[in-house]
Amino acid sequence: MGELQRKSWKMQVPIIVVFEGWHASGMSDIINRFILPMDPRGFRFHTATSPTDEEKLRPLLWRFWTKVPARGQVAIFDRSWYRRAIIEHIEKNNGKGLGRCLQGIRSFERQLADDGYLIIKFFLHISKEKQQQRFKELEKNNGDLFIVGEDEVDYANEYETYLYTVEKILENTDSFRAPWTIVEANNRNFATVKIMTAFINAMEDKLKEVDYKSVTETTVDLFPKEDLPGMPSLKTSILARTDMEKTIDKKEYKKKKKDYQERLRHLQYELLKRQIPVIIIYEGWDASGKGGNIRRLAHRLNPRLYSVIPIGAPNDYEISRHYLWRFLKEIPPAGRIAIFDRSWYGRVMVERVEQICTENEWKRAYREINEFEAMLTDWNAVVVKFWLQIDQDTQFERFQKRSEIPHKQWKITQEDWRNRENWDAYREAVDEMLEKTSTTYAPWTIVEANDKKYARIKALKTVTEAIEEKLKN
Amino acid sequence: MGELQRKSWKMQVPIIVVFEGWHASGMSDIINRFILPMDPRGFRFHTATSPTDEEKLRPLLWRFWTKVPARGQVAIFDRSWYRRAIIEHIEKNNGKGLGRCLQGIRSFERQLADDGYLIIKFFLHISKEKQQQRFKELEKNNGDLFIVGEDEVDYANEYETYLYTVEKILENTDSFRAPWTIVEANNRNFATVKIMTAFINAMEDKLKEVDYKSVTETTVDLFPKEDLPGMPSLKTSILARTDMEKTIDKKEYKKKKKDYQERLRHLQYELLKRQIPVIIIYEGWDASGKGGNIRRLAHRLNPRLYSVIPIGAPNDYEISRHYLWRFLKEIPPAGRIAIFDRSWYGRVMVERVEQICTENEWKRAYREINEFEAMLTDWNAVVVKFWLQIDQDTQFERFQKRSEIPHKQWKITQEDWRNRENWDAYREAVDEMLEKTSTTYAPWTIVEANDKKYARIKALKTVTEAIEEKLKN
Repeated sequence: MGELQRKSWKMQVPIIVVFEGWHASGMSDIINRFILPMDPRGFRFHTATSPTDEEKLRPLLWRFWTKVPARGQVAIFDRSWYRRAIIEHIEKNNGKGLGRCLQGIRSFERQLADDGYLIIKFFLHISKEKQQQRFKELEKNNGDLFIVGEDEVDYANEYETYLYTVEKILENTDSFRAPWTIVEANNRNFATVKIMTAFINAMEDKLKEVDYKSVTETTVDLFPKEDLPGMPSLKTSILARTDMEKTIDKKEYKKKKKDYQERLRHLQYELLKRQIPVIIIYEGWDASGKGGNIRRLAHRLNPRLYSVIPIGAPNDYEISRHYLWRFLKEIPPAGRIAIFDRSWYGRVMVERVEQICTENEWKRAYREINEFEAMLTDWNAVVVKFWLQIDQDTQFERFQKRSEIPHKQWKITQEDWRNRENWDAYREAVDEMLEKTSTTYAPWTIVEANDKKYARIKALKTVTEAIEEKLKN
Repeated sequence: MGELQRKSWKMQVPIIVVFEGWHASGMSDIINRFILPMDPRGFRFHTATSPTDEEKLRPLLWRFWTKVPARGQVAIFDRSWYRRAIIEHIEKNNGKGLGRCLQGIRSFERQLADDGYLIIKFFLHISKEKQQQRFKELEKNNGDLFIVGEDEVDYANEYETYLYTVEKILENTDSFRAPWTIVEANNRNFATVKIMTAFINAMEDKLKEVDYKSVTETTVDLFPKEDLPGMPSLKTSILARTDMEKTIDKKEYKKKKKDYQERLRHLQYELLKRQIPVIIIYEGWDASGKGGNIRRLAHRLNPRLYSVIPIGAPNDYEISRHYLWRFLKEIPPAGRIAIFDRSWYGRVMVERVEQICTENEWKRAYREINEFEAMLTDWNAVVVKFWLQIDQDTQFERFQKRSEIPHKQWKITQEDWRNRENWDAYREAVDEMLEKTSTTYAPWTIVEANDKKYARIKALKTVTEAIEEKLKN
């Protein structure tokens, strides 16, 4: 096992091991036997205890997304999203929303598997009789009864209450990419051996697969064709249809700006009271005025209730994980506003155009992004997405001006000029992005931004109205 | 301001801005005016709300240490360790422990300043009359009364209750390296201007200082001589006095190992109940058997209650912060056990010998480490530190064996052989470390490790007894 672990480190395969099972199935003992031979430099152990205050304010999968291991590392989950799904949907809500939740879990696991993660899931099964017997033993030995941070569960009747649900969940989440291994745990030695064997087999298969890929040097297409959005074949361009002449006069601008800012100031407290999160995304051409627009939007907001999240190139730490990981970390707590200055859409724009990711990867990303945003809106978030559109002439003028004004020179670099040369490639990417990721739950708003003032008012208005709409319900 | 921010980014100066003040001093409005002109890529905003579950289980300064900015970044604290010190020591404990807490804060700020951090602290002051008047206004305007995540405080009588304490705190924590600026905030415009001016001045001074340093290319010694531990002038070596012949026979080993492991298994639940954290540090020569020793120590522990933290070279993310930052992150929650496989002592060993840090830096580190460990024990932690001692012949034999056994080859690298050549330099460093960081509250235990079995029993025994001793109180 130690050797395989080192090999997977060398080949940079990230591994997720999930342990679920009945209470008193001897899980912590079995897990300890599993981890002791491993090199502690290579793994992290996580217990799915009751959510912390921070986690309670985020979507259910957030706390697991943030714990996704880096390439070459192992993450071991002592109970996981499954246990939390049961507690939050069965115990607290009488099963409401479980189906949707399982769908989210399937997306989560598929996205990771697609990105090269090896996912191994164990369910420790003991018979009802064995469970009752162990409960009695545990009662005698006080120390072991300590369940760390677990919700209060009706242990004695666990079997009757959950057998049906557990079977349903196992059935619904057993997939080719993330299969379940049911482990009979009446006998702990047997269970440990079975787990080790399954783990070693899965690792060996995965390493062979990676080896094969790197030898043949072709991308093995693991994804059924219907999953992939087709090649771009746009007849009409969304951007081309944008009316770039829109403007606003100064007096109206001042009045409206003040009005909307005041409305937003009040709305932020309402959002907090009702614990509704707001996620605002700014995308747009270089020099389209994102920064100034954001500043006007945030002008009257309470700094405790909003944050601006600038997205640049990922660092090493981020690169070594699934690309959505670094955005997950920034999801605001319920009741707060997060403004993203650039976002996960980099995957289908700059990473596509500059060939930072593979074609398979950016094509897969449309679906992944839609699923990701569905998770946000399922969690009751308001999601507003802006594309700030300017034409090439306006961009040129602004670049010129920036080069001339000393305190704005830092804003313009060689890269900006270079990106400009790629205008057509970017336009194609943007058009496809707008088409494929405009959903009913998270639509794009094109903001005509040749006139910065007009753009600011449109953004303020869109955000204000989206929030007001949400608060009506 | 924007320009200074970019300059400090370029010069990699990390900046900490603290805002404290009376309630209703208009803090959030003033802070928003302060941050809006800044580039959001350059700063992070933090509110010192009530501690989260995670934070409650850690020392008070932990949550602020973990938020220390990277070089070139600004961290803005909307209330900070001062507010929390007041709440936790005055409101909850009638002032008990405040003196010790302020001492911890002074160490914290000094350590950061020594490391090149610029610390700017503002206290927003309004008169009692003005405060009463604003409370009345706020009551009318419901929205603004929202205090986000703040503990319940007797606002109406805040002035009478805290004036004396606040004055005492300001006086006690106003230092050359982290001075307070008192800002009269009856008028918000005046306050904003005063803050901006003070900020700009402090930035300019700091940048000049950094500039000067890099031009003259000498290390400006900012630290009074008495702060520095003297040059090593060891007459007797602690290591040389170690008896390397100690052994244990196999039968006794087996029996004792089982006994201690069983005792530890019970103790871990006792620790959890009483919320006492345990921090165990393993340092020692290469091939001294740290890994195997740790495995025996953890053998019967519940994986939910302990973690092994292997420490390697820091990554980019960690290098760009104070060197203690990456260890702070790993401090276990109260009631849990953390086992460090190597630790912060790297600063005074490998970083000293390999000249990764400057002489000033490693000399300063003895005091910083002692202060850091004092913080841990003040927080009620048990701290156990092991130095695993082997002689050169034993190391040579073990290196040889490792090269011969295929599945142990990964353990031995060129670097290990190279380190071996530096044995004398390391021994000098280790001796000085043992001498200067063996404190009454966190003493070193030298473990004679030529016989691995003997070493394991000694470690098990030391940990068990240290915990039992603690639990007596």
